[in-house]
Amino acid sequence: MFSKILVANRGEIAVRIIRACKEMGIATVAVYSQADADLLHVALADESICIGRAASSESYLCADRIISAALVTGAQAVHPGYGFMSENAEFARMCEKHGLVFIGPQPETMELLSDKERTKRLMQEAGVPVIPGSRVIKDQETALAAAEEIGYPVLLKARSGGGGRGIRQVDHAGEMEHAFSVASNESRTAFGDDAVYMEKFIHPAKHIEVQILADEEGNTVCLGERDCSIQKRNQKLIEETPSPVVSAEQRDFLADVCIKAAKAVKYVNAGTLEFLMDQNGEFHFMEMNIRLQVEHPVTEQLTNIDIVKWQIRIAAGVLLDFKQEEIPFIGTSIECRINATASGKVEFLHIPGGPFVRFDTFLFTGMVVPPHYDALIGKLVVFAFTRGEAIRKMRAALCELVIEGVPNNIEEQIEILASPEFQDGSYNLDFFRNEVK
Amino acid sequence: MFSKILVANRGEIAVRIIRACKEMGIATVAVYSQADADLLHVALADESICIGRAASSESYLCADRIISAALVTGAQAVHPGYGFMSENAEFARMCEKHGLVFIGPQPETMELLSDKERTKRLMQEAGVPVIPGSRVIKDQETALAAAEEIGYPVLLKARSGGGGRGIRQVDHAGEMEHAFSVASNESRTAFGDDAVYMEKFIHPAKHIEVQILADEEGNTVCLGERDCSIQKRNQKLIEETPSPVVSAEQRDFLADVCIKAAKAVKYVNAGTLEFLMDQNGEFHFMEMNIRLQVEHPVTEQLTNIDIVKWQIRIAAGVLLDFKQEEIPFIGTSIECRINATASGKVEFLHIPGGPFVRFDTFLFTGMVVPPHYDALIGKLVVFAFTRGEAIRKMRAALCELVIEGVPNNIEEQIEILASPEFQDGSYNLDFFRNEVK
Repeated sequence: MFSKILVANRGEIAVRIIRACKEMGIATVAVYSQADADLLHVALADESICIGRAASSESYLCADRIISAALVTGAQAVHPGYGFMSENAEFARMCEKHGLVFIGPQPETMELLSDKERTKRLMQEAGVPVIPGSRVIKDQETALAAAEEIGYPVLLKARSGGGGRGIRQVDHAGEMEHAFSVASNESRTAFGDDAVYMEKFIHPAKHIEVQILADEEGNTVCLGERDCSIQKRNQKLIEETPSPVVSAEQRDFLADVCIKAAKAVKYVNAGTLEFLMDQNGEFHFMEMNIRLQVEHPVTEQLTNIDIVKWQIRIAAGVLLDFKQEEIPFIGTSIECRINATASGKVEFLHIPGGPFVRFDTFLFTGMVVPPHYDALIGKLVVFAFTRGEAIRKMRAALCELVIEGVPNNIEEQIEILASPEFQDGSYNLDFFRNEVK
Repeated sequence: MFSKILVANRGEIAVRIIRACKEMGIATVAVYSQADADLLHVALADESICIGRAASSESYLCADRIISAALVTGAQAVHPGYGFMSENAEFARMCEKHGLVFIGPQPETMELLSDKERTKRLMQEAGVPVIPGSRVIKDQETALAAAEEIGYPVLLKARSGGGGRGIRQVDHAGEMEHAFSVASNESRTAFGDDAVYMEKFIHPAKHIEVQILADEEGNTVCLGERDCSIQKRNQKLIEETPSPVVSAEQRDFLADVCIKAAKAVKYVNAGTLEFLMDQNGEFHFMEMNIRLQVEHPVTEQLTNIDIVKWQIRIAAGVLLDFKQEEIPFIGTSIECRINATASGKVEFLHIPGGPFVRFDTFLFTGMVVPPHYDALIGKLVVFAFTRGEAIRKMRAALCELVIEGVPNNIEEQIEILASPEFQDGSYNLDFFRNEVK
């Protein structure tokens, strides 16, 4: 096992990873931007190194500075968390070259899967039902032709995208010009790559994603699905497992094809296959996230499996010590993302507790939430035997949670929970779409 | 189901019960002493009523005031928590007379089991192996004679005792006079009853207790055992489930005899049978706690069963909807009691989070811990698949927990965890005994 890991991230996920390392007896190195010097991940880590200015492009996205920090501190491995360098094959390759273990898939797998369009072909070959779509589109003319073939409405999506950014819906040919330039620009700004591709807009649909874990000998398990259909501007707001609309038969089908697909691409470590589920209960593969997901805790609460620890173990060559049939899938777990709607100083913080309530956060009383990064300030997660009880538990926990001084979306989450669509589980990606399109 | 419950307690357990009620859609009434007006249970409850001065005898132990508060607010049931009125049969009877449901066993069962010496006889008749002991002892002469018969060393224990108070070890006849008067006095002060009885001092021994749940139709399940052998001055400090020294065979034996015993006394609601386990692996019944235990969360984390909610459901006539063989017993859960060693104002509070870490507390930043009550300010609980991982998780969580302004025992807990006896699970009631006798 590693004796020291550098955590190449910030916020709640850096805290989450550092805690896992502490529990495993592994020393930790935090990196931080000048804006993050007083943050919790810096306080919790055994060592910390400032890697630049507040802008991510001058700190958390600087591969060379992160690798220098790892080498200077004698770290043996780098955990990238999500976002930032987590799906950057070049960074993973650089880690390898410098004798550092990148905690994630092999660099060659990342290179293979870095192109979403190629990934879809590979998945199709492995027997995964894939959403109809195009190859990378270079110009508007090709886009118009592809849309004619696929049939409107379509979506334009960033090849290197993630987190819901770089996506535009196009309902008819007249919208293509504007949508294409916006999607390309957003993609270049967010991911440094302006390539976009097109997909059939499946509608109405549920966003259903499947968590897998694979070790380097190819032992692969499926940790069930997550329903992430409560999204606003393509940002997930609430996730739950199991999905209230996925049957046991469908779950078995998803596990079967996802395990086969992961094996086909020799996938190692934690990964997530994202699907749209249409009104007929058919699944359409969209993309594979080759990293830890924000919403991994719901899967942990349901299965009792610590995904971050297994990421670390797998990267260190440890083999999975449990089998698919041993994984418990009892109850329901729900996560509400708590987002800051503005930066601010935490004047008072009260975190709900009690059985099966978890709050992953980097907040503490007196800290200032810097304005430069992701809006996510906490993830409230509950578990209960029944979905109804889980919803009531989440409502009670949201009502008890107090974050004074940082404007946030707690009230909105309470409203979403109370909606008939959430209560009966029938909600889909349209939940906010009409409102925000 | 009840629509409103009065919680006749304070501190972390009142918060725990109020949260359960909120999740069940039940309105709550808090009662509080003048010293507790600003406490969390008052802030969380829907309504609250001051029932007197700081001294428990003038507030939380005043049956008439509590019942008045329940009647005035239209509560249908009273949850007593632990301590205070929780094992007071007279109070339960008063509740019944006023049309209030006492959330606990039936008053007649409480009356039957209120006498520990009679309880031991009942348990013996039901096939439970019982610790050798005497009936109630009125004077020193009888005490000396009983000790001769049982054989030194013996323990003098309060008939109405609980929480480790009113217990004295007597190693030889010369110690009897002093021990007898101290035990009687302590018993009278703490429980309003100076009656004491005698038990064989089984030594060395583990404190092993068994959690049961029974509904009013007599359906009874056993939620496994807890090892509570880390005690200082008879106060439990760390509890874990399963016990590292109880075999699957012994667990089945305990479940079998405890379920039989509970049925024999027509026990309804949550209860705990306390045993000493001697060096030969034999169990000796000590007493039955006819209420919720402080350490119930470890059982909840292992079994995923919410004991407080089931107490409420059972009191409302709901039947258990799961069977003994459906209860999961995978992994290890550990609880460290966080005690204040002096009162004080919470200047800064940081609670560890992440997967399978739970902190039940009534603390919040800026509050003052009143000096009048129990030292318990929080219960840190962890769960992991293996005992080793659970210990490391607890260590990491204890190291992260910050309670500035209130002197506490976090450091001591870290030391206990690090001891060879705790690490290998061989610890017994002698852990602190030599130090503090």
